[in-house]
Amino acid sequence: MRATVLVRPKQGILDPQGAAVETALDHLGFSVSGARIGKVVDLELEAASADEARAQVEKMCEQLLANPLIESYDVEIHA
Amino acid sequence: MRATVLVRPKQGILDPQGAAVETALDHLGFSVSGARIGKVVDLELEAASADEARAQVEKMCEQLLANPLIESYDVEIHA
Repeated sequence: MRATVLVRPKQGILDPQGAAVETALDHLGFSVSGARIGKVVDLELEAASADEARAQVEKMCEQLLANPLIESYDVEIHA
Repeated sequence: MRATVLVRPKQGILDPQGAAVETALDHLGFSVSGARIGKVVDLELEAASADEARAQVEKMCEQLLANPLIESYDVEIHA
């Protein structure tokens, strides 16, 4: 089963990479605000059901993929 | 208008970060394969329509957010 995880800095957490992207886009003539940078993790795993896959991936997030103090995550399972 | 961009390493492009995540997950007892790491960019922009917003964000991807030689991108516009 294929899973996609989106890991984003939580609201209120400073995101210097996002601020840098915003400044750079501004210099290129684009007007944007609120730019935030996170990461996307795609992976393949064995699981009997989508629910089981989701539970496994959530454990991975808590243990490795995200820092729950400063990041939130969303899990998508592609059947 | 709010946009989300997913930037991923193209197929066939080496992804050492993905390989490291796979090894680390393996050490934690998870069995996964094909782990790939990319980035997610969330931003807010002014546009008259979703199509115009998409066109603008695609330009941003080509000029700054993605390296088209080694990365592909997907744009989602949230009305």
